[in-house]
Amino acid sequence: MLNQNFIDMLGQKSVIRELFTYGSERAKEIGYENVFDYSLGNPSVPTPESFTQEMLRLLQSEDPVTLHGYSPSLGIDSVRDAVARSLNDRFEMNYQKEDIFMVSGAAGAIAHAVRAVTVPGDEILTFAPFFPEYMPYISASGAVLNVVPADISTFQINFDAFIEMLNDKVMAVLINSPNNPSGIVYSTETIDKLAMILSEKEEEFGHPIYIISDEPYREIVFEGIDSPFIAAHYHNTITCYSFSKSLSLPGERIGYIAVNPACENASLLVDMFGQISRGIGHNCPPSIIQMAVVKSLYDTSDLSVYETNKNILYTELTKMGFEIVEPGGTFYMFPKALEEDAKAFSDKAKTLDLLLVPSDTFGVPGHFRISYCIPTEKVERSIPVFQKLANMYL
Amino acid sequence: MLNQNFIDMLGQKSVIRELFTYGSERAKEIGYENVFDYSLGNPSVPTPESFTQEMLRLLQSEDPVTLHGYSPSLGIDSVRDAVARSLNDRFEMNYQKEDIFMVSGAAGAIAHAVRAVTVPGDEILTFAPFFPEYMPYISASGAVLNVVPADISTFQINFDAFIEMLNDKVMAVLINSPNNPSGIVYSTETIDKLAMILSEKEEEFGHPIYIISDEPYREIVFEGIDSPFIAAHYHNTITCYSFSKSLSLPGERIGYIAVNPACENASLLVDMFGQISRGIGHNCPPSIIQMAVVKSLYDTSDLSVYETNKNILYTELTKMGFEIVEPGGTFYMFPKALEEDAKAFSDKAKTLDLLLVPSDTFGVPGHFRISYCIPTEKVERSIPVFQKLANMYL
Repeated sequence: MLNQNFIDMLGQKSVIRELFTYGSERAKEIGYENVFDYSLGNPSVPTPESFTQEMLRLLQSEDPVTLHGYSPSLGIDSVRDAVARSLNDRFEMNYQKEDIFMVSGAAGAIAHAVRAVTVPGDEILTFAPFFPEYMPYISASGAVLNVVPADISTFQINFDAFIEMLNDKVMAVLINSPNNPSGIVYSTETIDKLAMILSEKEEEFGHPIYIISDEPYREIVFEGIDSPFIAAHYHNTITCYSFSKSLSLPGERIGYIAVNPACENASLLVDMFGQISRGIGHNCPPSIIQMAVVKSLYDTSDLSVYETNKNILYTELTKMGFEIVEPGGTFYMFPKALEEDAKAFSDKAKTLDLLLVPSDTFGVPGHFRISYCIPTEKVERSIPVFQKLANMYL
Repeated sequence: MLNQNFIDMLGQKSVIRELFTYGSERAKEIGYENVFDYSLGNPSVPTPESFTQEMLRLLQSEDPVTLHGYSPSLGIDSVRDAVARSLNDRFEMNYQKEDIFMVSGAAGAIAHAVRAVTVPGDEILTFAPFFPEYMPYISASGAVLNVVPADISTFQINFDAFIEMLNDKVMAVLINSPNNPSGIVYSTETIDKLAMILSEKEEEFGHPIYIISDEPYREIVFEGIDSPFIAAHYHNTITCYSFSKSLSLPGERIGYIAVNPACENASLLVDMFGQISRGIGHNCPPSIIQMAVVKSLYDTSDLSVYETNKNILYTELTKMGFEIVEPGGTFYMFPKALEEDAKAFSDKAKTLDLLLVPSDTFGVPGHFRISYCIPTEKVERSIPVFQKLANMYL
């Protein structure tokens, strides 16, 4: 018989994807330029030339048998080494290649990390607002994801609620800074307080509590914002990185896990990730993409458009009366909706061909997410549409 | 605490990988040309020009934001459509794009198929000799893999043993033709008999019994060999394909699952595969590789070297007294060892720098696997070494 678990998952399709699909259909009817689609977090700027040129060079100069040959299951040695060095250079860390596991994006990275540090029934805590796809990554492993309510005024961490929920079944805390959907960057103060609490509780409970740090937006931080490198502040940190946003390569499925060498069982964890991949028959990210990103480890796409868009939207929407915690990075913001029911608000926006994701699946009611990874001229043209929407609530 | 299951898996590392690692180390000592490494099934011929040219064209001509953008979770529509058409053209089938799921190689394909059609405790049957990595793919899902003993004289199916093991907990039969490690191709007679038995048992048990058909070697079939397309012979067939061997792209992780449209729940199964990927955070194979293989769906690497190598080895080893069922395809053969203990035999060969994989993990005692995906000149130079090995048993 078929496995009902996966059939049930079909009923819980992503709200974001549904809105995006609606937008694509609507664009066919009224023209792409007339749909203000803020639904999907798909990078809108091209990958840097360094990546494309390295792909071309590999295809034109390398022996194809070696180039396209099997990658070792933990990743290509020279690639792991280059990733470790780049982290050491940039964040004054002390990674060796043995601490790096190449993986197909941050989603896979999180799924691996969760499976390594939990057994079914263990708990993972994350903080609202949070990326809703954490749910399937974790529930499929048998662990339980519990969500700490948001600190609505800052979107930093609600420590009172956190401490109340931090029991001895919690094996890991999953954080995401810069944050999807709020755009907030956790401050050094927040991270240090989190680290202090976890260290105390590790001692009290007698087992490690890992930070699983989901960092696909690490490179998208706005001017003047303090963005600490999490692993430098807490020993048991498993860093989950994706090149999807920094190099605009979401379809190529390339990222890594970096296990802090100060972590308990660091090298064992990396070996375990290899076995987790083996069990799902997945093995490794594409060889040529692994090799090509090496040339872009210190590079990014031109990410400035996201800050430009943020400034326009934050300024104009605030003027209209929207309450917004100003983002410090990413290409998201998470304003308060103009009515309590976020879905009803999103539906009103939809009548104006303005696609805004309602907040409920992010673990916070009454807000909406704007993904402003779209051309700036379109952001500008959308401002009068936001005004129309606001006017509906006058 | 860490998940002990994955730590335990570390103790069961692949015999093949260990021998390959030994060979690489040994090559550093005595020179690559002096190690006759028949351990690993890594293609030795380059990918066809059609693939490389299409990769270059995509990188040079396509909009990079689209090219490297997110693939839909079931695969890029135009790619799924092209795969369906190519199967219809080549095998007179009736696939639609909705029946195709793009996946990162046959390993992932099998892992997905098993998870969709079983719940923990269900049984899967496979036939010895079999690829030992089936064990982790299946045990990680909670299903149980049981191995039907080999028909040593032909390496077709031992039907008496099969019927005895086919109980109502069996949800799928996992087959691999052309076969790793024997090189044997199941005849039309074998497949039709298998199909007949399964159809009868489906009726008796009142539930589907799927054939999960692992077909990475489908394109490597030698002259005069009858190689039926499995799905054309049995309705409930889930075909797991990889481009690793036919296009020499093992590192690029690209393949597909084709669900026979005559299959019960065909479109539901494909949707379920998407949810299985979602739960492991994997999503999809790399976008650019998906797009590039479209131009090579009717093409292969120059695979003739494998038949040349097979002919030399089969002729010369048979002359020396080895008992071999002649391969019909792949780049493997599976001769009887010259003593009962395959490991001891492999160890003797190792003293001659001849690396042969002992048969026990393939589910058959007293044999060894030769992976002859190496240059023909090296095969020729290895013949006197095989003779030396044979002489040890005179």
